[in-house]
Amino acid sequence: MTIKRVAIVGLGLLGGSVGLAISECLPGVATTGYDADPEVRRRAAERGLAGTVCDTPAEAVRDADLVLFCVPVGAMEAAARACAEALPPAAIVSDVGSSKASVGEALARALPGRRVIPAHPVAGTERSGPDAGFASLFRQRWCILTPPADADPAAVEALGQFWEALGARVEIMDAAHHDLVLAVTSHIPHLIAYTIVGTASDLEDVTRSEVIKYSAGGFRDFTRIAASDPTMWRDVFLSNRDAVLEMLGRFTEDLTALQRAIRRGDGEALFDLFARTRDIRRSILEQGQDDARPDFGRADHADR
Amino acid sequence: MTIKRVAIVGLGLLGGSVGLAISECLPGVATTGYDADPEVRRRAAERGLAGTVCDTPAEAVRDADLVLFCVPVGAMEAAARACAEALPPAAIVSDVGSSKASVGEALARALPGRRVIPAHPVAGTERSGPDAGFASLFRQRWCILTPPADADPAAVEALGQFWEALGARVEIMDAAHHDLVLAVTSHIPHLIAYTIVGTASDLEDVTRSEVIKYSAGGFRDFTRIAASDPTMWRDVFLSNRDAVLEMLGRFTEDLTALQRAIRRGDGEALFDLFARTRDIRRSILEQGQDDARPDFGRADHADR
Repeated sequence: MTIKRVAIVGLGLLGGSVGLAISECLPGVATTGYDADPEVRRRAAERGLAGTVCDTPAEAVRDADLVLFCVPVGAMEAAARACAEALPPAAIVSDVGSSKASVGEALARALPGRRVIPAHPVAGTERSGPDAGFASLFRQRWCILTPPADADPAAVEALGQFWEALGARVEIMDAAHHDLVLAVTSHIPHLIAYTIVGTASDLEDVTRSEVIKYSAGGFRDFTRIAASDPTMWRDVFLSNRDAVLEMLGRFTEDLTALQRAIRRGDGEALFDLFARTRDIRRSILEQGQDDARPDFGRADHADR
Repeated sequence: MTIKRVAIVGLGLLGGSVGLAISECLPGVATTGYDADPEVRRRAAERGLAGTVCDTPAEAVRDADLVLFCVPVGAMEAAARACAEALPPAAIVSDVGSSKASVGEALARALPGRRVIPAHPVAGTERSGPDAGFASLFRQRWCILTPPADADPAAVEALGQFWEALGARVEIMDAAHHDLVLAVTSHIPHLIAYTIVGTASDLEDVTRSEVIKYSAGGFRDFTRIAASDPTMWRDVFLSNRDAVLEMLGRFTEDLTALQRAIRRGDGEALFDLFARTRDIRRSILEQGQDDARPDFGRADHADR
């Protein structure tokens, strides 16, 4: 099966990047787009995030071979219901949400009998909205498909090829396993970044101005992550609750052990952990999953 | 008083950057350098991290107006003792350590009656060693001086001007307050980064290879920080124990509250925090303390 027409529902960072990536990498594929916010639709049309920006979800999906829901995971079900009647029966239905078991259930409830194949491109930035997207967002990033057990292999194949055409590498796994993996590689990192930034804002003995001035000691990295879209992240934590709580339990156990080592002056335990964690960074760089330059090649050192 | 000759003891990321910054910003100032590791001395001489790289600490400090200890904070006292006899009585003694109360005490013990003015340039990268330094490291970063109550104002002034000449902005504060501020803007961020990277490495139900592949979801940012020098950071936590434990207590309280919000499905509490933390990022960018481009302007998006 061939994908010739893609409908993008939700034109923020992810939806907009999909549209731009299609026009760059798959110029023969037509795109339609819809967003519930008229201001976002206006801006999406200006930036050309989709070939046609439609005023209703039904219009956007009417002739699509692939419908991609690019809305916060808590909004997936309502967005899918709004498209249900107009959706062509043979269309592949997918999404870009950061949790997969609950999204798979929501889409299946809203669109019974349709070809639902949930997916998650592991890519993004701290920006959001129709001005945030760019065509190269998915390049060299992984896109995880979580097809249900009875999914049509041809549809899974076509969706995988679509993401590969946008520059991504594709992996297939079980939705529950996806949710556990992403809890540790994405959800818990966001949760602790939001927490420490909140803790620092609320101190009385250290002023906000001091926190900002001396943020180059490490804190500023966390503020980038904690500037991510609040609605998207609220929905991620609510929809992936069990895996997040499980991983959070392990993290706090480990943190308590380090706290004890500091209290007891156990330098050896600290050193052992700190020496061990360098290896993972090395592997991430070797596999092209981050910028190898110090400080991510940040601009303040770019002139060196 | 004028600083015409600077001795740098310890030629890693910080010491090496000081030497390179002096030769770029203060070409009239002579530098001598020493490192306990002969291999580091060899490499420092090759890179020109100091005008003269000496084979003993005594030689390095003999005619210095300013001696800067750039070693892990746990090694400060021994490094200072090794220089005590050769140190000119009028020389300013300072350092670049990340905790200040304990370093101030260590230097005062090793060099009684000398002009000790502890300092901390809040700058660095995840790299370490004699190849890691670069001249622009301190540009636009803050350097905090923590002079003891009886410090000579002329010496404090001279040290401040020295750091300003290297591109830094200078602030003066009490050592105890410094240690509290840096606990939250630097030490706790490093501790939780080391912890989550350790937690992720030790999982059984998620493989190391999965953690690496899907690190672009947020985790990779933490691995950068957790690749920092293990000896340096062990010493920071041991030397700033009380402030670190105090701030860690507040962080875990806040994390527990978020955990409860997730367990109860309290989306409002999550959204409120996540929306609030964006402001601090905005202020950090406005004050030039981080790169404003998405993802710090990382190379994988540099072609957009």
